[in-house]
Amino acid sequence: MAERTFSLQLKVRDYECDMQGVVNNANYQHYMEHARHEYLKAIGINFAKLTEEGILLVVKRIEIDYHFPLRSGDSFEVSCRLERISPLRFGFLQQIKRLSDQKPIISGNVIGTSINRQGRPILPAVLDEYFKQR
Amino acid sequence: MAERTFSLQLKVRDYECDMQGVVNNANYQHYMEHARHEYLKAIGINFAKLTEEGILLVVKRIEIDYHFPLRSGDSFEVSCRLERISPLRFGFLQQIKRLSDQKPIISGNVIGTSINRQGRPILPAVLDEYFKQR
Amino acid sequence: MAERTFSLQLKVRDYECDMQGVVNNANYQHYMEHARHEYLKAIGINFAKLTEEGILLVVKRIEIDYHFPLRSGDSFEVSCRLERISPLRFGFLQQIKRLSDQKPIISGNVIGTSINRQGRPILPAVLDEYFKQR
Amino acid sequence: MAERTFSLQLKVRDYECDMQGVVNNANYQHYMEHARHEYLKAIGINFAKLTEEGILLVVKRIEIDYHFPLRSGDSFEVSCRLERISPLRFGFLQQIKRLSDQKPIISGNVIGTSINRQGRPILPAVLDEYFKQR
Repeated sequence: MAERTFSLQLKVRDYECDMQGVVNNANYQHYMEHARHEYLKAIGINFAKLTEEGILLVVKRIEIDYHFPLRSGDSFEVSCRLERISPLRFGFLQQIKRLSDQKPIISGNVIGTSINRQGRPILPAVLDEYFKQR
Repeated sequence: MAERTFSLQLKVRDYECDMQGVVNNANYQHYMEHARHEYLKAIGINFAKLTEEGILLVVKRIEIDYHFPLRSGDSFEVSCRLERISPLRFGFLQQIKRLSDQKPIISGNVIGTSINRQGRPILPAVLDEYFKQR
Repeated sequence: MAERTFSLQLKVRDYECDMQGVVNNANYQHYMEHARHEYLKAIGINFAKLTEEGILLVVKRIEIDYHFPLRSGDSFEVSCRLERISPLRFGFLQQIKRLSDQKPIISGNVIGTSINRQGRPILPAVLDEYFKQR
Repeated sequence: MAERTFSLQLKVRDYECDMQGVVNNANYQHYMEHARHEYLKAIGINFAKLTEEGILLVVKRIEIDYHFPLRSGDSFEVSCRLERISPLRFGFLQQIKRLSDQKPIISGNVIGTSINRQGRPILPAVLDEYFKQR
């Protein structure tokens, strides 16, 4: 049975830091997106390939609590946990922790769905399969 | 009496769009931040100057509902409305609308606070003044 | 006869600044790209539409001299001048000046070409027309 | 004797790709910067710490030849080679290769110098030492 949790280790890049000397708020959303896409790939769902085929995975809502900022040189872990919320909506619970001391950096909740280029809902078969395995 | 609402008109830049051909989710957070900082400047609060003085305006929580994506060529308006939430926390209600037809693009809610470099809460006098005017 | 020079006025956004408190080097490339695309649009060449049609305008070489950095709050002008270099290559001479005092910020030189999705050279008819008008 | 070459392996993140489905040109500059900063750290020069101390490593000129684009899923290697050019200027020769087949992606040449907050040239002692070892 496929795992519903996933994590990825990354390191702050200096250009991601802003004039306060910490990672700019919007960049956590980039880290979160990258972890979701790597997770999806690990369970057989390729975001780029789906996009080419006209199936668009889209974010409908995002909530992020910022606990503590990352700085230049910090290594960190981004985790995701995937849950089906309704027939066509799924949620990712995501956290970022600093690796040196497991300090919580952000907690996030991302609600997504899947549509075609005309905006009609369409769940990729592989994602439907994935949820049925549980 | 100072206004508590503010809006800014911007235009999508092509590098802000991702492989789906729409503005990448994280970039709306950039638009929102830029509008907040311009708003603060309009009421006498300079984010960059405060940062130099060691007063850091920080985001504690963000919620964004994504209604419809922006595309290459779209012009849009980012609005903010500022409210005091508690002695040390303030909230920005933000919206983005497409200019051509007023279509709602995102709605957001951003909770911020203000700290010094040691992480201690400190509200800039000018912001305190601003809230007292109401 | 169409103009071969173009300029655009923009303002620094705080998220574009890095921990040195100045606009991060890579962001000038964003400003330059945005000005080129707006220029092309002004002469009837829509980057996004061409991309959808499978015609890709691509950069082959970029040179940037950094004279002086932009900071939070600075307004600036990005200019472009377009020249044909060879049957399939064109060049943009670009400059950024600070608006308050015309201080030169960067000078750049961008060589581009146009290919299809298979990597074959193909010049959009409208660009060919444009060069022939001179 | 310290090494003058350095390389770093990274992977494309989907948000780095633009509407053409390839990594946006400006992002290569980000990859290059990150590799330079990691390289400097490896030889004892911490960009963030120097910035806090008021010593600013700055880019004066950049040249990039774009050979072939990176796409979603590509892993790649960014290499740097550091050379002193004059008493106060140093150059980084940088290359990016796709890992799967060593395909050359970009070649770059970055000229940097080091100044204090007043804009006066100042070479960090450790960098001076480093060059003298050769």
